[in-house]
Amino acid sequence: MSAVPATWMRGGTSKCWVFRRPDLDLPGRTVDAVLLGLFGSPDPRQLDGVGGATSTTSKAVILSPSDDPDVDVEYTFAQVGIDEAKVDWGSNCGNCSAVVAPFAVREGWVTPTGTRTRVRVLNTNTGQLMVQHVGTRDGGLDERPTTTIPGVVVPGARVDLGFVSPAGRSTGSLLPSGSPTDTLTAGDVTVPATLVDAGAPVVVLRAADLGLSARETPARLDARPDLLATLDGLRRAGAVAMGMADTPEAAARAVPKLAVVAAPDEAERSGGAHLVVRMLSMGLVHPALPITGSVALTLASRETGTVVSDLLGGPADGTATEAGHEFSMLTPAGLVTTTYSVEDGQPVVAAVRTYRRLVEGSIELPVVAGAPVSAADETARSTEPSDATDAAVTGSPGSPASEHQRAIA
Amino acid sequence: MSAVPATWMRGGTSKCWVFRRPDLDLPGRTVDAVLLGLFGSPDPRQLDGVGGATSTTSKAVILSPSDDPDVDVEYTFAQVGIDEAKVDWGSNCGNCSAVVAPFAVREGWVTPTGTRTRVRVLNTNTGQLMVQHVGTRDGGLDERPTTTIPGVVVPGARVDLGFVSPAGRSTGSLLPSGSPTDTLTAGDVTVPATLVDAGAPVVVLRAADLGLSARETPARLDARPDLLATLDGLRRAGAVAMGMADTPEAAARAVPKLAVVAAPDEAERSGGAHLVVRMLSMGLVHPALPITGSVALTLASRETGTVVSDLLGGPADGTATEAGHEFSMLTPAGLVTTTYSVEDGQPVVAAVRTYRRLVEGSIELPVVAGAPVSAADETARSTEPSDATDAAVTGSPGSPASEHQRAIA
Repeated sequence: MSAVPATWMRGGTSKCWVFRRPDLDLPGRTVDAVLLGLFGSPDPRQLDGVGGATSTTSKAVILSPSDDPDVDVEYTFAQVGIDEAKVDWGSNCGNCSAVVAPFAVREGWVTPTGTRTRVRVLNTNTGQLMVQHVGTRDGGLDERPTTTIPGVVVPGARVDLGFVSPAGRSTGSLLPSGSPTDTLTAGDVTVPATLVDAGAPVVVLRAADLGLSARETPARLDARPDLLATLDGLRRAGAVAMGMADTPEAAARAVPKLAVVAAPDEAERSGGAHLVVRMLSMGLVHPALPITGSVALTLASRETGTVVSDLLGGPADGTATEAGHEFSMLTPAGLVTTTYSVEDGQPVVAAVRTYRRLVEGSIELPVVAGAPVSAADETARSTEPSDATDAAVTGSPGSPASEHQRAIA
Repeated sequence: MSAVPATWMRGGTSKCWVFRRPDLDLPGRTVDAVLLGLFGSPDPRQLDGVGGATSTTSKAVILSPSDDPDVDVEYTFAQVGIDEAKVDWGSNCGNCSAVVAPFAVREGWVTPTGTRTRVRVLNTNTGQLMVQHVGTRDGGLDERPTTTIPGVVVPGARVDLGFVSPAGRSTGSLLPSGSPTDTLTAGDVTVPATLVDAGAPVVVLRAADLGLSARETPARLDARPDLLATLDGLRRAGAVAMGMADTPEAAARAVPKLAVVAAPDEAERSGGAHLVVRMLSMGLVHPALPITGSVALTLASRETGTVVSDLLGGPADGTATEAGHEFSMLTPAGLVTTTYSVEDGQPVVAAVRTYRRLVEGSIELPVVAGAPVSAADETARSTEPSDATDAAVTGSPGSPASEHQRAIA
C-alpha cells in the first residue's frame, strides 16, 4: 500500500484535503486517478475513502512553492467527483483558497513577519494572483480562533483573501457605463442603479426604490416570482448598459449579479454593519453573499455618486484596522466583512475567512482503485524485493514493489 | 493546540475514527468533550471537525490491550452526536467492530500467526466477548482487498467477526419453544415457523407459505401494508411462543425480528447462495440482512426439522473453507456470508466483513470546543512556559500550557 501525506483543513465553509504537489506524483497513475482513489470515488457515499459525499467535502488543494519571484505559492483546486470517476479542474474555490497561506507558513515556504504575514498566491486554475494575510506569532502560525464568519458555527483563525486590482476584470473598468449612477427600466419599473465591475460585474439597486427593506428572508423574496422577474429584467438592462450584452434577452444568466442594498439602522450599525444587502445569483436569493459580490459592493461604496455611497451619506471608508479598512455587509447569514488596502501601489480588496487544521497525517491509497488485487500485483509481490521489474511496477503502482521503488526515488 | 493520534478506518459500511484509550485522556476534559471537539459537534454539518455529518460517519472506536488473560483487546464504541453535544455509549456497532482485530495486530497487541490470526475481543458497551480472525502475512497485517460485502462498492481486506456461543442469549436456549418448528397464527393466516434465538431472537417463515418468493424488492414489500400487518402479527405470535411476551400486543417492536426464506434456484446456487432471505426489522424490510439475523439463520439452517433445513433438504453445513463452514444468504443487497466453526469446544458464528485503513495521523483538538479563545487561555499563554499554574491548565485544557503538561506526563 502507498500512503500519501496530507492535511485536512477547514477553509471557510468547506473541508479541503491539502497536498504538496510532489506527493501526488505516483508512478503509473495520473493525479486524477490518485485523487479518485484517495477520496473513494466513484461511489455516492465515498465509503472507502476520505471524501465526505457532498460537494463541499470532496475538495482537494494542491500546493507548491513558486519559481516566480513575485509569487510565494502556487495552488490548484480540484473538485473530486463523488459518483463520477471525474476530477474537475475548471474553477477555483474561494473557501478552499483560505488554506493556502496557513499551509505555506507551516511548510516554511514563507517567513513569518510579526503578527500578520503576507503571502503572494497564484491560483493555477484561473491564473489569478491573490495576496493573502494570515496571523502569525513567535515565528510561526497563529492558529487561535478569533474570528467568526457566516456559515461556520465556531470561531476560527483568520485569513484575509486579497484580490489585487479587482476593478474592470470583466469589462475593462470599475464603472463600465462611465457613470456612477445610471437609470434602468424593466416593464413599468424605472430605478437608479450603479453598475460596478470588481470581483464580478454587479448591478446595485436601492431596496427602497423597489418597495423592499433588504431585510427580507431569502425564502420570502424567492416566493415572489413577479418581483424576481422585475429584478431579473433590471439585471438584464444593466448587462446591456455595461456592454456585456446587445439586448436584455441576450444577457447571461450568471453575470452580472444583482444586489439590493439599504443603509443599516442604528442597532445594525452598532452591531458592526456598514451596509445591508440581499444578493441575487442565478435567479435565486443568495443565503449570504458571494465573495465576488462583496468585493464589488466594497468598491462601489468607496466611489462618489454611486447608489451605495449616496445611501451612506458619501463614500464609505469602513473601519480602519491593522488589516486595512474593514467594510461589513449584513446578509441573511450575518456579517460578511472585507478589507480594503493599497499594497505596492495597487488596491487590494480582501474577503475575511477563517480556517482550521483538522488532521495531519497520510491517506492510504487503495491497491487498485475500484478493482480487486490484480495478477500483476501478485507477481510483483512474489518477486520482491530482489528483482521487481519496471514493468511490474508500472502495471501495479500500489504494490509493495512500487512502494519500494518510491522509497528509493 | 493539542493533537490526538488517530486512525480513520472503514469498517463494513461505516467510517470509524479509531483511538488508543490513553490518547483520549486529556487533562481537564472529559472523553465526551474531547470526542465532540474532535468531531466538530454540535453542528449539523460537523464543518469544524472530522465528523461526516451522518450517523454512519460520526463513529469512534476506542481500544486498549486487555489485562484479562482470556481477552486480547477491549474496545468501546461511541456514537458521536452531530447536532447534539452528546455521545451515546449505549450500544455496539457491528460495522465498526471490524476495525478491532486489524488495529490490534498493527499495534502489536496480538502476535500474527500465519495467514489468519485470531484476536479475542471484549466489547465494553455490551460486555460481549467476540473472536475475530483477520488475514496476516510475513508477521504483519495482510491488507489486500480480497472480499466484497453488500453495501461497499469496492473489495476490502477480510475480517471475520465471530460470536462465541450465540445461542440462547435472550431466552436461554437456541429453540426457546422447545421445538424446531411451531405453528403461528395471525388473523386467518396459519403457517409453520421456526423460532430461533442466536445473535437475536428471530421468527423464520417460508416465503412460499405466504405467497411470496423472497426475491421481492424491499420497496415492493413495504408497499403492501396488509402483508406487513400479517407478518407483524405472526412475529408477535412468535414472541409469545418464545416466552418473550405474555400477549401478542405486549411484544416489543424491535425483537423478535422476522425472516422470510426460500431455497436458492440453480443460478443462485451456482452464484454461491445457500439461502434466499428477506428480513423485517422495526416494521420495515431490511435493505440487506442485520448481522444478528445472519447468525440466527445460520444456526437455524444447521438444526434438523427447522423450516430452513426442511427447505434445504436437511441440515445445511455450508461450504467448508479454511475459515470454517461458510453459509451465504442472498439478500436484496447481495450475498451476506457467515462462517461456522468450533473453537475451544464452543460454537462460533462469524459475520464476514471488510475493512480498510483510510488515514493515519492526528486530529487537532479545538482550543475550547464551541467557544472563542477564553481569557484563561490568554492568561495561560502569557505566563508560559515558566510558571503556568495548575489552575490555568485545568481551566483551559487546550492551551499551550496544557500541551506542555501532556508532554511531561
